[in-house]
Amino acid sequence: MTNIAILGYGTVGSGVAEVIGTNAELLKKRGTGLYVKYILDLREFPGDPYEDRVIHDFDTILDDPEIKVICETMGGTGAAYKFTTLALEKGISVCTSNKELVELHGAELSRIAKEHHCSYLFEASVGGGIPLIRTIVQGLAAEKVERICGILNGTTNFILTKMAKEGAEFDAVLAEAQEHGYAEKDPTADIEGHDAGRKIAILASLVTGQNIAFPDVHTEGITKLTPVDFAYAKALGMQIKLIALYDTQGDKHYGIVSPRLIGEESPLSCVQGVFNGVLIHSNMLDDSMYYGRGAGRKATASAVVGDAIAAAASIGTTIDSGLTEELGDLAEIGTYRQRYFVRLKGSKSVRKEEVEAALGKGSIVFDVAKDEFGFLMKEEMEEAAFMQKTEQLQGVIDYIRVL
Amino acid sequence: MTNIAILGYGTVGSGVAEVIGTNAELLKKRGTGLYVKYILDLREFPGDPYEDRVIHDFDTILDDPEIKVICETMGGTGAAYKFTTLALEKGISVCTSNKELVELHGAELSRIAKEHHCSYLFEASVGGGIPLIRTIVQGLAAEKVERICGILNGTTNFILTKMAKEGAEFDAVLAEAQEHGYAEKDPTADIEGHDAGRKIAILASLVTGQNIAFPDVHTEGITKLTPVDFAYAKALGMQIKLIALYDTQGDKHYGIVSPRLIGEESPLSCVQGVFNGVLIHSNMLDDSMYYGRGAGRKATASAVVGDAIAAAASIGTTIDSGLTEELGDLAEIGTYRQRYFVRLKGSKSVRKEEVEAALGKGSIVFDVAKDEFGFLMKEEMEEAAFMQKTEQLQGVIDYIRVL
Repeated sequence: MTNIAILGYGTVGSGVAEVIGTNAELLKKRGTGLYVKYILDLREFPGDPYEDRVIHDFDTILDDPEIKVICETMGGTGAAYKFTTLALEKGISVCTSNKELVELHGAELSRIAKEHHCSYLFEASVGGGIPLIRTIVQGLAAEKVERICGILNGTTNFILTKMAKEGAEFDAVLAEAQEHGYAEKDPTADIEGHDAGRKIAILASLVTGQNIAFPDVHTEGITKLTPVDFAYAKALGMQIKLIALYDTQGDKHYGIVSPRLIGEESPLSCVQGVFNGVLIHSNMLDDSMYYGRGAGRKATASAVVGDAIAAAASIGTTIDSGLTEELGDLAEIGTYRQRYFVRLKGSKSVRKEEVEAALGKGSIVFDVAKDEFGFLMKEEMEEAAFMQKTEQLQGVIDYIRVL
Repeated sequence: MTNIAILGYGTVGSGVAEVIGTNAELLKKRGTGLYVKYILDLREFPGDPYEDRVIHDFDTILDDPEIKVICETMGGTGAAYKFTTLALEKGISVCTSNKELVELHGAELSRIAKEHHCSYLFEASVGGGIPLIRTIVQGLAAEKVERICGILNGTTNFILTKMAKEGAEFDAVLAEAQEHGYAEKDPTADIEGHDAGRKIAILASLVTGQNIAFPDVHTEGITKLTPVDFAYAKALGMQIKLIALYDTQGDKHYGIVSPRLIGEESPLSCVQGVFNGVLIHSNMLDDSMYYGRGAGRKATASAVVGDAIAAAASIGTTIDSGLTEELGDLAEIGTYRQRYFVRLKGSKSVRKEEVEAALGKGSIVFDVAKDEFGFLMKEEMEEAAFMQKTEQLQGVIDYIRVL
């Protein structure tokens, strides 16, 4: 039985206590029992089953030699950063769901953990309960990962799934998502792609062995999508997803978050609603995909507890987090080659030749909306060249990148 | 750089050498470099890049104190069992793709490994390159796994995908699969479901913490399926897959391999061709799925090398394999509750009432084949009761279980 502390008794923190409590017998039988000795929070929780564990002073945890593992479920990059650093410096392993902290300081915290023979683990920070980090760092340890295509944000995937199904407008579906708790009151981080961007920065860091920062990821959200876009997708037998992409072309590495059309044959096409899915292409295994709940109280807590179990079994040693401080960077999106789908004003018969002269061969999609047509490119083009060509073409309504 | 030995230079064994060779720089950079010092095989390999490592006497490996990790890619339960035992007793970790050996002796070999402070790892034995074992044992360490639905055999999934797509007969598609190397000359183990059965026995053992034997798994193959079955599936908007199922109902555990109809909304519906997919339902994370190449030289070798890397980083300690010797057993299929799809002779209008009186409410599917109709049950029924009812009903052509 290992004594642990939980920092922050919010959604995930209370989920951690619940997972440990509900599966207590099972964990005990497996020899991986955990006991929540302290819960750090500024608030009181009268009536809560764990109210007697609640304390307000972090030093109580730091000074108790029984505490070898801490679950940091506070969020934010202020106090969470400070407490994590202090804990690691005392050789106390920290397991977290805090993606902002991991993206910003994960490499440094991993180094501190290594210097003090403990572990900094963050399975829950990307893809919620799906054991993605462990898969990449350990399961794919023999692999060269060449591409990661992630549906990494449940809020936006819920919205896009509904827009596709019901032909509804973005604003209406967002409002509904907020009502049901699938989107925050301030949904910016989700709908503008920042959340997905932070996550792909973390994954890119793991597979490159370098420290990739979120600001280097080209990030676009889903707010410009309309029912007409979804009508075109349906006509093409494709789906629109917010894809967080890490890719390599030549010796360049790219990180791009944007809506993309995906084909029905892609395993990502089965990722619906709030579920996440991450399709990884690596040089020996080829394609593999990992699917599950990327958010949600118990799903996320499960990953934190999974890390705590691993940390508890490795006291005195460091489980490699996969992060290093060697700075890495991503290439500008301008040189990235991909296909696009373009909506153009006018008549397909009149414009087909002109469009193909600019964008290469492609398939026309028509009779979806009045006085316009769609053009799905067959050949890839560098983004900078595409932007130039579409500026020269008259009447480009919008475009969607293709996976 | 850790010195390793490969036992058996066949498809997977040579794949292991290739993975290590191709990704040598990457592994070195990550601090996980491996050197293939010996390759044990009875044959010679003139002209092979590794021919100078080939030896014929296992004692050379056993007696070399530099060898701490062995990759057993011989297959079979004879010499492989003997060599594995000898190695583990010397504290040499063994990583294998040998599912027959794991299913039969894995628990015992895990115990020997533990007694001698080394590891017995078998990621490659189930689901090929998909990091499935590590996911279940470590990633889902906090979870109570309640159900596993696996498409675990690439040969049969290739065949079923083709039958669905082309309306072809089983024998013709099997012959084609054999031509392309997707099925063995003697395909029995695959098409009769034994391969999938062994794999689900291993997975069931991991999640129950008990030793579940393959003979306890109720196993049926795909040889009775016909194009008409697939026509019904299409009409229903469903697919027929060979599903290796571990499930819990009440306090009973079940292991059943058989064809099943799955709905389009299931994430398993995107698992096509030779790919494998394993859908896991656990009590905190809910549904998660792991998809990838369950067979194939480099895919399988990748998993063996991933294990070797983990073992090399843990010399002197035991990585818990998840297997124990405590005997477990599965309940008889007779008490398992599920829905069925039934094909019946005659006219739906005439027989509907009679069929619903026997099998409960359901949907009728007609106009798929002459003088017959299909009936998809809405309510679950125990298998024994279903068998009894269908015996009493006249003209039951066949039935398919539903997931």
